[in-house]
Amino acid sequence: MAQLNDNYLKLKAGYLFPEIGRRVKAFTEAHPEAVKRLIRCGIGDVTEPLPSVVVMAMHRAVDEMAVRDSFKGYGPEQGYEWLRSAIAGTDFRAKGLDVADDEVFVSDGSKCDCGAILDILGSKNRLAITDPVYPVYVDTNVMAGHTGEADALGAYAGIRYLPCTAANGFTSEPPLEPVDVIYLCSPNNPTGATLSREQLRDWVAYALKHRAIILFDAAYEAYISDPSVPHSIYEIPGARECSIEFRSFSKNGGFTGVRCAYTVVPKSLQASTADGEFRSLHPLWSRRMTTKFNGVSYIVQRAAEALYTVEGQAQIRALVAHYMGNAALLVSGARTAGHTVFGGINVPYIWVSAPSGYTSWQAFDRILGEANVVITPGSGFGSNGEGWFRVSGFNSRANAEEVSQRLQALRW
Amino acid sequence: MAQLNDNYLKLKAGYLFPEIGRRVKAFTEAHPEAVKRLIRCGIGDVTEPLPSVVVMAMHRAVDEMAVRDSFKGYGPEQGYEWLRSAIAGTDFRAKGLDVADDEVFVSDGSKCDCGAILDILGSKNRLAITDPVYPVYVDTNVMAGHTGEADALGAYAGIRYLPCTAANGFTSEPPLEPVDVIYLCSPNNPTGATLSREQLRDWVAYALKHRAIILFDAAYEAYISDPSVPHSIYEIPGARECSIEFRSFSKNGGFTGVRCAYTVVPKSLQASTADGEFRSLHPLWSRRMTTKFNGVSYIVQRAAEALYTVEGQAQIRALVAHYMGNAALLVSGARTAGHTVFGGINVPYIWVSAPSGYTSWQAFDRILGEANVVITPGSGFGSNGEGWFRVSGFNSRANAEEVSQRLQALRW
Repeated sequence: MAQLNDNYLKLKAGYLFPEIGRRVKAFTEAHPEAVKRLIRCGIGDVTEPLPSVVVMAMHRAVDEMAVRDSFKGYGPEQGYEWLRSAIAGTDFRAKGLDVADDEVFVSDGSKCDCGAILDILGSKNRLAITDPVYPVYVDTNVMAGHTGEADALGAYAGIRYLPCTAANGFTSEPPLEPVDVIYLCSPNNPTGATLSREQLRDWVAYALKHRAIILFDAAYEAYISDPSVPHSIYEIPGARECSIEFRSFSKNGGFTGVRCAYTVVPKSLQASTADGEFRSLHPLWSRRMTTKFNGVSYIVQRAAEALYTVEGQAQIRALVAHYMGNAALLVSGARTAGHTVFGGINVPYIWVSAPSGYTSWQAFDRILGEANVVITPGSGFGSNGEGWFRVSGFNSRANAEEVSQRLQALRW
Repeated sequence: MAQLNDNYLKLKAGYLFPEIGRRVKAFTEAHPEAVKRLIRCGIGDVTEPLPSVVVMAMHRAVDEMAVRDSFKGYGPEQGYEWLRSAIAGTDFRAKGLDVADDEVFVSDGSKCDCGAILDILGSKNRLAITDPVYPVYVDTNVMAGHTGEADALGAYAGIRYLPCTAANGFTSEPPLEPVDVIYLCSPNNPTGATLSREQLRDWVAYALKHRAIILFDAAYEAYISDPSVPHSIYEIPGARECSIEFRSFSKNGGFTGVRCAYTVVPKSLQASTADGEFRSLHPLWSRRMTTKFNGVSYIVQRAAEALYTVEGQAQIRALVAHYMGNAALLVSGARTAGHTVFGGINVPYIWVSAPSGYTSWQAFDRILGEANVVITPGSGFGSNGEGWFRVSGFNSRANAEEVSQRLQALRW
């Protein structure tokens, strides 16, 4: 009698974004006249076309695949050497950070990597996860059986939630007790908060002291405008001994529909066996990728490589400037409307307080129904997100201006 | 103190193909003069250019991504509806098989799916795996902690190996005792054996009786030339209640470097909770894909869709005919050289007996060293593969002819 994985039955409701999709669909079916007016600022999905260097690189790669002598079949599962080298050289070594080419593993997405990383970790690690947070960190641990049941507020037993609130600027200090695996996301999705160099130093010191591992999600790294904010955890001495970093081309190169990301696993990062012997995680991740993955599409890897040319880097900066211009408009509109606003400085999201008495989903429904704007309810990111919502700056300038106006026009 | 997943330490040596790569590299470094003569028939990787319909579809998709109005960001994690519909309609419903669009989940590879499927199954299922077999089935179960340690022959405790030998035509009947999860691959990689309608009926009857699940790998379906061999397990009544089917575009469309595949999870397929309640696996797989995956590249999905056009289907047939012509040449050469040969009829691989007294790796080393041909040692697929080797027909016609000659010229 085949058994299913009972841990899946612990998961609460649907994954956040499918639930938003269901509500939007119900609304547009009931109000077909509002469809034209609808502006989507919910899921953090880019809207602008691919950079021209990427378009050209993909056309060239497709042409290579059309000719026998330049056709490419299976590539190295960890990514082509030319891409790993471009990544490690540009994103790290050119900035004085020590990352070797073969410590970079190319994948089809950070979401995939954030889930897959659990494969190589033990099942009894004590977890610390900030709240609010990208739901994938929590849900993948629930699926893997690393938690107990959820309580009435949706918090799972066995996870040490680190409350991030307006009072602490939506960042958290290390807990007093030891934990083993810590998820940090800076710049933060959804709140836009960043961890300063001092805060990251505290986290690295904590991890080294407790021999914990930091899973550092830097998907929004390209949006950092504050020069004092670290772009990589490897800027902190000691981080190579305690940290894995996730990066993505989704938000800098507009690759949400192209699919490419990478993960850095330093060879100096160790974890304990059940017998207490410390071993490098690098060969485990390499084995995981070679056995359960078959590499990213050749065409997509050539697209990612193009982002590392001089023109590619300039085109990334132009995309970032566009979306951050939108974020500034949204910040201004939401503040004028009387909301408390975080974010919008080092990340293209703004994190907005719902008016007093409104839950996040109630605010979602009113903004959808009256302003015809789709936002993301903060409670979908954790119980400390209740009473907040996220508005995405990934849009056209005209739409960002319009949303800014509609937020001001909405009478609560 | 962070712990690693100790199950990884049970894995024997490297994954098969990296080990072949290491030996080939060592040989070519020691014999640079042989590099030009080297012919690779090891890893089953396609060599011919992409079908022209695919090339055109990818160029069009890249151009769409270059323009704001047609740009595509995140797609549905399970695949675009137009692709799921083309797959279910063409591969199943047009052949009278009952598969709904939303039972098809598009992914970036069957290797990935074969590993990922374990996510939704319980950890205490009794496994049956044919031997020899595609190593990923075994290794992913070892990594997931579903086995004990390996013995001296490399067999893991806790797996019920089903011996496939020349005596049983490299196919296996259901075991006498109950098991919960069964891996079947037909046409088989590496042996080329196929399961007849009657054999598949026996397996489905067994699975229904024991409420077991069959994981049916049909990656080589397009190569079936024998009209009596089923192309899908869903040709067998009752299979929708006990089977998951894996399909790939790697071998029919030449997508090994493009990356696209799909998995069918029928809504009528159930498994038991720990409490003995039966539930559909479909929502679990959907949740798995939406939470741990972000869909296949839009450009790649358009490429796969093109394979379902009339021209696309004809171009697949031409590719299959090319590789099967190679396989026929290899069969003939190996038989003339005195080897016992299986396969080469419904799969582009031939499965060849090593001369008496030779292990698979010894045969590998001599064929590499003297014929300068890379093959795959049968023992890499399991202990019952010892004494055999696989030669891939994925090559140019000229190379297949040359390998056929060299196998005949080799003096053992």
